[in-house]
Amino acid sequence: MNYREESLKRHAEWRGKIEVVPRVEVDSREKLSLAYTPGVAEPCLAIQKDPEKSFELTRRWNTVPVITDGTAVLGLGDIGPEAGMPVMEGKCALFKAFGDVDAIPLCIRSKDPDEIVRTIELIAGSFGGINLEDIAAPRCFEIERRLIEDLEIPVFHDDQHGTAVVTAAALINALKLVDKKIEAVRVVINGAGAAGIAIAKFLLKMNVGDIILCDRQGILCAGDKTLADAKAEIALQTNRGRRTGSLADAMRQSDVFIGVSGPNCVTKEMVASMAEGAIVFACANPTPEISYEDALAAGAAVVGTGSSEKPNQINNVLVFPGLFRGALDVRAKKIDFGMMYAAARAIASCVGEAALSPGHILPYAYDLRSHKAVAAAVAEAARKSGVARR
Amino acid sequence: MNYREESLKRHAEWRGKIEVVPRVEVDSREKLSLAYTPGVAEPCLAIQKDPEKSFELTRRWNTVPVITDGTAVLGLGDIGPEAGMPVMEGKCALFKAFGDVDAIPLCIRSKDPDEIVRTIELIAGSFGGINLEDIAAPRCFEIERRLIEDLEIPVFHDDQHGTAVVTAAALINALKLVDKKIEAVRVVINGAGAAGIAIAKFLLKMNVGDIILCDRQGILCAGDKTLADAKAEIALQTNRGRRTGSLADAMRQSDVFIGVSGPNCVTKEMVASMAEGAIVFACANPTPEISYEDALAAGAAVVGTGSSEKPNQINNVLVFPGLFRGALDVRAKKIDFGMMYAAARAIASCVGEAALSPGHILPYAYDLRSHKAVAAAVAEAARKSGVARR
Repeated sequence: MNYREESLKRHAEWRGKIEVVPRVEVDSREKLSLAYTPGVAEPCLAIQKDPEKSFELTRRWNTVPVITDGTAVLGLGDIGPEAGMPVMEGKCALFKAFGDVDAIPLCIRSKDPDEIVRTIELIAGSFGGINLEDIAAPRCFEIERRLIEDLEIPVFHDDQHGTAVVTAAALINALKLVDKKIEAVRVVINGAGAAGIAIAKFLLKMNVGDIILCDRQGILCAGDKTLADAKAEIALQTNRGRRTGSLADAMRQSDVFIGVSGPNCVTKEMVASMAEGAIVFACANPTPEISYEDALAAGAAVVGTGSSEKPNQINNVLVFPGLFRGALDVRAKKIDFGMMYAAARAIASCVGEAALSPGHILPYAYDLRSHKAVAAAVAEAARKSGVARR
Repeated sequence: MNYREESLKRHAEWRGKIEVVPRVEVDSREKLSLAYTPGVAEPCLAIQKDPEKSFELTRRWNTVPVITDGTAVLGLGDIGPEAGMPVMEGKCALFKAFGDVDAIPLCIRSKDPDEIVRTIELIAGSFGGINLEDIAAPRCFEIERRLIEDLEIPVFHDDQHGTAVVTAAALINALKLVDKKIEAVRVVINGAGAAGIAIAKFLLKMNVGDIILCDRQGILCAGDKTLADAKAEIALQTNRGRRTGSLADAMRQSDVFIGVSGPNCVTKEMVASMAEGAIVFACANPTPEISYEDALAAGAAVVGTGSSEKPNQINNVLVFPGLFRGALDVRAKKIDFGMMYAAARAIASCVGEAALSPGHILPYAYDLRSHKAVAAAVAEAARKSGVARR
């Protein structure tokens, strides 16, 4: 099937992938008086006295906006806020189907971080958490940091952390198959945008052996004055051997390749130059850094991509529904590394030893057991780390 | 039943009066590929090419935020944004139940008109229309005016215009009962806030004989230098006889009293001083200007209140679901007087000649036929006046 053509047709038929429905009946005078005036005055006054009660007396506790400025939508780039809406809406449908979270799509017509932050802060009282989506780097880092500082509800930029969590889950299981420990592996990440930097930070917290991060100019190396802030910062924590050179140089004898960059930038020769038991996650969308077939043919032991057409789709949808479900269930103040790492391990553990194989390292996106396992693990981690409010 | 106590209990059980549900299935790889990646890229690109397509390929066409700053919630006043949410959420439930509109509650933590306007403008690309709610006067006038100027979708402040439309509908039918023409009646409006001024402007466009508007200081009279902008402006168009004095002075020999003010400010003597066939709409909530029973006892021919406990509840819920339904159906650029007047006449016409009586001048809020009639009349009016886009 040509998914894109067919999808356009379906979207025109659907006229929206989500809708809002009442949870109360209003078909009599009495019911109206309870759900609306005059009865509704009482819950209003209860919240005025204690704003925290808005999490008990309205849907706030379960509602999350999926917010974009439309600047980094899928692999399509800066296509504008309205054009990002089909993705946001799709995500809202997945939030409900897989996490029972009430999510609403919101696009913001601004590229100014101050204005985006202010807008979200002003409406945050309506929500139990905030999901940021498809906002370009480096703006996304500042926006997320400031919102986390200022708000008392979870703020989560999925392109950074959702990607990091699902990649970590895939890596946990792939490493089992090649019998290597994360402390002993050298990982090459190609793409030093929001996703690449977030994956690097996440793996560092998992005590990965070493990481070499590459952008279009090649290997990122500490001390390079030409690097932008976010890249300079991550360069200090990666590439311990202070290597320089191209992506090909980085990949030679490395254990893991993670691509969050663009199409066709990795050759079979580059994969063949990796260490034995090579793991290749070529996640660029829609066209990966190297095709699933070519990576296998070049000798990779485990291959994952971003595509739903191939085995081992490394897809954020394994993460965000359960992660928010767990965070909302315990009224978490934020989403910390412990919660995200718990999510990664929960996802990995959903593929049992018997089922685990090079062609099956992750659960299927539509497997509800996996989302439930993530939610439970995240809630438990939040309680342990003290960010849970209940 | 004590509605307020019972309502608080119910709200704690409901934990939200609305929720978001998917309109698409996502329980297989193929379905996910159509509703989400990779398929979703195509509708995104179609909207990038033509942002108007966001009304066809997403739920935007049917989605309206119910937005408040929490400064004039019910009769409770400035109780804060979160505390306004139970009302907004209730309204969203009614929007769907009566108008099939997907509405989401949004509270904004700001009292600065610039900031409120800017926030709404930045997120407007997500929506097919904007419902403003419970924003205090005079701020609400400026906010609405600027949004109408800047946005190409309908913007509607319900406390002003919803109230005006339903009051006009009630008046149309009440005048039939007392056999008076609107051109010949003198109307006294008590309360010169958002609702009072909007009702006055609406009745002027209906060619009402004369209006005397009163606030706490008494009759508003043109030329009074102490009046604030909005009051000074409406004073120029009302009170042709340049009367001065108290509310009691204004009511003497008047035909219609409309109260959108506070509790118990009208006595039986004041009603008795009105002209024969007096119409009294005492809409203050929860306690009216004069009770239904007292107004009747004092000789009023037709009495309406804001209460669901008495006959003739004059309730905005008769207006907003059908009004937005009609406006969204024809992709109206705005909501003009013609559309609102059509809504008022449609509501009035839902009480047929046989059913019309002093105890029954309006349809019931939960009567779906009335909402459908409003939607059809509004759509037709929008097509006639040229604000319809299709």
